[in-house]
Amino acid sequence: MSNESTNRKAVVLLSGGLDSATTLAVARRDGFACYCLSIDYGQRHRVELELAMKQANQQGSIEHRIVSVELRAIGGSALTADMAVPKGRTIDAQIPITYVPARNTVLLAICLGYAEVVGAFDLFIGANAVDYSGYPDCRPAFLNAFEALANVATKATVEGRGRFQLHAPLVRLSKAEIIKLGAALGVDYSETLSCYDPDASGAACGRCDSCVLRRKGFIDAGIEDPTRYQSK
Amino acid sequence: MSNESTNRKAVVLLSGGLDSATTLAVARRDGFACYCLSIDYGQRHRVELELAMKQANQQGSIEHRIVSVELRAIGGSALTADMAVPKGRTIDAQIPITYVPARNTVLLAICLGYAEVVGAFDLFIGANAVDYSGYPDCRPAFLNAFEALANVATKATVEGRGRFQLHAPLVRLSKAEIIKLGAALGVDYSETLSCYDPDASGAACGRCDSCVLRRKGFIDAGIEDPTRYQSK
Repeated sequence: MSNESTNRKAVVLLSGGLDSATTLAVARRDGFACYCLSIDYGQRHRVELELAMKQANQQGSIEHRIVSVELRAIGGSALTADMAVPKGRTIDAQIPITYVPARNTVLLAICLGYAEVVGAFDLFIGANAVDYSGYPDCRPAFLNAFEALANVATKATVEGRGRFQLHAPLVRLSKAEIIKLGAALGVDYSETLSCYDPDASGAACGRCDSCVLRRKGFIDAGIEDPTRYQSK
Repeated sequence: MSNESTNRKAVVLLSGGLDSATTLAVARRDGFACYCLSIDYGQRHRVELELAMKQANQQGSIEHRIVSVELRAIGGSALTADMAVPKGRTIDAQIPITYVPARNTVLLAICLGYAEVVGAFDLFIGANAVDYSGYPDCRPAFLNAFEALANVATKATVEGRGRFQLHAPLVRLSKAEIIKLGAALGVDYSETLSCYDPDASGAACGRCDSCVLRRKGFIDAGIEDPTRYQSK
């Protein structure tokens, strides 16, 4: 384990999915004391929040908070409104209806507030711009703009206590590379869920964009897929 | 009434306070079809949300939404945690404990999501950097950084449907100038509340930073103060 940042605090956004679990493992490897944050934004896959809690515990975080934000009140997404999650579609250049308007902006905004409260200047997000659904708020241009915003937004920076750094360690990795990295760091992927439309037991559909990307990732990585899929 | 932007949609952040009520009046004057948004972030002064609803109605908005975000779960402010609101202090260079970590970042993030859902590209916020409490997220540097973020954050901009513009028409006005402007536009300030620590009936304390600024604003504007203060 690297000790370069020992005792330095970080806030890690944790969704219960594969990418954020890996991101937490990277932050821990780099010696950060991790404060994990999950946002309950009315997503259909609420079982992810329980898995996020498990990941935070398994990976030795300092604490885990869940903050609710009622994005259902504005709607506009298959993940928060009454629309069907698309299955078996080709992942192409179009941004799909699973896009949640301004989702990562909202998540990072709350993350920034939490970081300021605990005195952290390092924020971690599992955003990925390679094997992803084309969401604009996963791209480096967005992440850079948020970091710039963070550094003029808070009392902590105005008072000169530090500069915020937004870490997205997975942003340029393929899904297979992410899985290899996490496996090497001991992430238990059986306790993560990426599916946009799991059943009540938390079994994955296997056919939404997110399942398709994850499934292929395990195959390409040559690592056995521990995901529990719904029986057809 | 200017017609330059007739039928153009805007989202207006409405808190129930004096500044945002005036901001809504400016957006209406400029011909925008206004979608009002209030954020219930666990503030003590919840009576403001009812006043926000009244303002939205009085001023002929298209709709008014309230979105809850549980900022109490991260704490860190006299407005959302169990700390006393300071009274009778001198408003100086220090940022007071009524500062809510990353508050305007969170508010604008949700505002951006709502704008994307309704197809608006104009966001209005009543931020003011003259007669204010020194909050960093009221300054032009912050507002400019948020506008830059908005324009890389969403499907709406990636798909080239428009560019977001963040309007803060009060940012360089004194409180007296804001009150004169709103009064000229017919804003009913008796139906607004700025106090950080109102009683259950919605009467203002008269002594917190926000009350002090507001009180002085009416005096300097030479306009009768319709605020209902708590009897001592």
